[in-house]
Amino acid sequence: MIDVQNQADTRGIKIQRTGVTNVHLPLLISDGGKVQPVTAQIRFTVSLSENLRGTHMSRLMEILHDWTSTPIKISDVEKILCDAQEKLDADGSTIQIKFKYFVEQSAPVSERKSLIDVDCEIAGELYENSRMQLSLGLTVPFTSLCPCSREISNFGAHNQRSICKIKLEVADIDKAEDFGIEKIFRLIEAQGSSKVFPILKREDEKFVTEYAYQNAKFVEDILRDVVISLRGVENISGFEVECENFESIHNHNAYAYFRD
Amino acid sequence: MIDVQNQADTRGIKIQRTGVTNVHLPLLISDGGKVQPVTAQIRFTVSLSENLRGTHMSRLMEILHDWTSTPIKISDVEKILCDAQEKLDADGSTIQIKFKYFVEQSAPVSERKSLIDVDCEIAGELYENSRMQLSLGLTVPFTSLCPCSREISNFGAHNQRSICKIKLEVADIDKAEDFGIEKIFRLIEAQGSSKVFPILKREDEKFVTEYAYQNAKFVEDILRDVVISLRGVENISGFEVECENFESIHNHNAYAYFRD
Amino acid sequence: MIDVQNQADTRGIKIQRTGVTNVHLPLLISDGGKVQPVTAQIRFTVSLSENLRGTHMSRLMEILHDWTSTPIKISDVEKILCDAQEKLDADGSTIQIKFKYFVEQSAPVSERKSLIDVDCEIAGELYENSRMQLSLGLTVPFTSLCPCSREISNFGAHNQRSICKIKLEVADIDKAEDFGIEKIFRLIEAQGSSKVFPILKREDEKFVTEYAYQNAKFVEDILRDVVISLRGVENISGFEVECENFESIHNHNAYAYFRD
Amino acid sequence: MIDVQNQADTRGIKIQRTGVTNVHLPLLISDGGKVQPVTAQIRFTVSLSENLRGTHMSRLMEILHDWTSTPIKISDVEKILCDAQEKLDADGSTIQIKFKYFVEQSAPVSERKSLIDVDCEIAGELYENSRMQLSLGLTVPFTSLCPCSREISNFGAHNQRSICKIKLEVADIDKAEDFGIEKIFRLIEAQGSSKVFPILKREDEKFVTEYAYQNAKFVEDILRDVVISLRGVENISGFEVECENFESIHNHNAYAYFRD
Repeated sequence: MIDVQNQADTRGIKIQRTGVTNVHLPLLISDGGKVQPVTAQIRFTVSLSENLRGTHMSRLMEILHDWTSTPIKISDVEKILCDAQEKLDADGSTIQIKFKYFVEQSAPVSERKSLIDVDCEIAGELYENSRMQLSLGLTVPFTSLCPCSREISNFGAHNQRSICKIKLEVADIDKAEDFGIEKIFRLIEAQGSSKVFPILKREDEKFVTEYAYQNAKFVEDILRDVVISLRGVENISGFEVECENFESIHNHNAYAYFRD
Repeated sequence: MIDVQNQADTRGIKIQRTGVTNVHLPLLISDGGKVQPVTAQIRFTVSLSENLRGTHMSRLMEILHDWTSTPIKISDVEKILCDAQEKLDADGSTIQIKFKYFVEQSAPVSERKSLIDVDCEIAGELYENSRMQLSLGLTVPFTSLCPCSREISNFGAHNQRSICKIKLEVADIDKAEDFGIEKIFRLIEAQGSSKVFPILKREDEKFVTEYAYQNAKFVEDILRDVVISLRGVENISGFEVECENFESIHNHNAYAYFRD
Repeated sequence: MIDVQNQADTRGIKIQRTGVTNVHLPLLISDGGKVQPVTAQIRFTVSLSENLRGTHMSRLMEILHDWTSTPIKISDVEKILCDAQEKLDADGSTIQIKFKYFVEQSAPVSERKSLIDVDCEIAGELYENSRMQLSLGLTVPFTSLCPCSREISNFGAHNQRSICKIKLEVADIDKAEDFGIEKIFRLIEAQGSSKVFPILKREDEKFVTEYAYQNAKFVEDILRDVVISLRGVENISGFEVECENFESIHNHNAYAYFRD
Repeated sequence: MIDVQNQADTRGIKIQRTGVTNVHLPLLISDGGKVQPVTAQIRFTVSLSENLRGTHMSRLMEILHDWTSTPIKISDVEKILCDAQEKLDADGSTIQIKFKYFVEQSAPVSERKSLIDVDCEIAGELYENSRMQLSLGLTVPFTSLCPCSREISNFGAHNQRSICKIKLEVADIDKAEDFGIEKIFRLIEAQGSSKVFPILKREDEKFVTEYAYQNAKFVEDILRDVVISLRGVENISGFEVECENFESIHNHNAYAYFRD
């Protein structure tokens, strides 16, 4: 049967990325010494030589399926990318893996245990003659309470749910084996006015309300505190931070961004 | 050219709705004496006799295009549906039109003017031997402030953005000509702990913060107050209300629902 | 500490549903003799007496957390609802659980194995003096190929990805223990012009292309064939079907709906 | 009243972007000699000096509201950004404006007229000591038909709706006054296997089906042809292209990306 993808191409354009996207698969994420089954959404690409018409996308799907029953550490991304380049005869490749990861949360007074969802994204890029790029992204929810509103009002202060989206670029991949989604989550959630919790009993709600009121922060305050906290994380060569407050007094959001 | 849609069908199944969905078109919405250009998302269907294989969907698109330059009052939905039934030789038809509508908001102290977006949905259903059904849906944002949190805490109270999604079933379509999206919006937004505003200067923020604190309401309180307010609206044969608080202390939402 | 939720309410409005929504939790779905870990999105509500101001939402979250480590059969929904009514002293309750479920797919010629994602929704409603309502919803992807386009064209025929969204109402809950997500999925995917597959080698792609061409179906044809196939499923008291074709020749979708 | 935002900050972190996001407003887009009312979604930020605690977000909203009644040309973005920097005493600013824009489409045989929706994004960035960056993004839908499927099959070929997302960086802003959304749209839609149309009569459907069959293209072919076509566009200093096919034979998408 003719291999149309393998036909010669004369347009002289090397393609940086071609592959599959919006693939859903069950994966096993290994992090911090634990393995968690997740439902992943994946984009997976290889580069394509200027001489070839198309790539063989089914091979990318086969590689992904081979990983559905093996725990994946963040550092395994390099193996996945090397495998893709070999099987598709490419000199570049990228992958993005998004999933919800659950972390145990403990209520501040009752110590009631619950599970909170954290949106994660592992991304890798491997190109010939370049250093492999590997990053871990998290979206962490917390409460923010407005310092201006508190200061100028005789009582109360507007507050709201906020998210902080970070992307950490890994410096040394060999030391990224056990990166610690939970550890990074704990670091970031502590920078809001208060943490959020799936289960809060009344004594917890009192604690959380008063804690946030005493810990008023603008979106800019939170952003700066996240930046300071991330500067203390080892094995990072760069990072990006986005904070967004779902303002309770507006129908739009407050937003701040920083890149180191 | 053969008309395949027009072929006979022997499966004996009359289809209640067949047509087009996720259609995007610019429309002119006429409401409360004003005409506003909107970007609409539309579903438009007709019934199909058990004897026919398929409907002629391009005719539905032609009818919709005919309305892109004429202001549409909510009561015009009947004309659109009758037109569809005639042109597609059907005895039933439905339409859903979703769009963002902008209402002028005035800050509570500075009186600064701004435009707030309201998600609207006009829906109609016309079937032979049934009364035409016409409804207006709005999603209205506001602030909610938790009475429990306020009561048990020494200072502060958690609050958050909330939405109230209502659906009003029109009793007498002939009197629905000028239904009043803005009027209904004003009624609903007044039932939260505070209204939300696109532009707030400092004196407004103080007002809004204190107002919400003095007007603490559970999601159930807001739901009940919306129900009471809607019972006073004329020309309604029934309604549905959903309230959702984007809890500032959780990563999930509080929710309440009522149907009259 | 004062229980504000427990305060008396005098507005005289009994609330049909109040609770939590957009809750994300890891669950174990037991179906067809297998257990699959899933990432679920949940809405969970109870009714609220006209005499009480608010419900105790943290108890709903506690009930859900109790189920994160126990396999859930569709028939277990009744236990979850009964538990909610007891713990929240309510006479009604509802739950909706949405998740992606993976089914093994086998390529038609190469027999290459892969996993395909199916969107599922289990929903239950239990009200005093009413029969418990339990339903299973699936969204099944497949290919559709247009009979009109094939007939009138000298070569080719437009085709596209389609989805069929069904909702099955369970007749006898005691017999729903092992409902068979996979079994229902297989039934529905067979009604399109062709099944879709995550991994297709060239010989499979030839098969799939030719199979779809020989099996041209309008959105109405598919809808009717799904209706006929569902009429043969045991233990169903009613069903709803929606088909949607992401038309390759339009920027909108073709749509059909049936309710039995 | 105290200006809390104006307090000194000692953390030593200059913030690149702080402002508002997910703002919805009605705007008037002026392009190609025509003015079109649109519903825009906006992100608007300024930089914040390391010495200041917070920015004054209401001023950003005021600037945006001032533009709701004036037609906006793409080159006006510079004025909006300068205005922001002056009113917020900032040395940097960014804006992103997303909206649906409608272009007239004419069916290939019947010449029936219709309106097709194009997702647009205008983005600008102005930082002290840097050249202003201005870009126009479009998402253009069309049909793709698989050359491999056509070649290996005895009849038919799988095809599907595709989108091409491009981002054009403007070289000389003074010459960008009339950038031509419609002109760029026409250029891109011509690179698929066939254009898509809101209204097609039977003679048009025959034409479109046969045209696509004779014009089979992989996602990589389309990407390369878009790259070649964009290299001919004047006043561009760089561009990015993403193509995505909603594969009719899979439940995932084919994807290709190029950056010049």
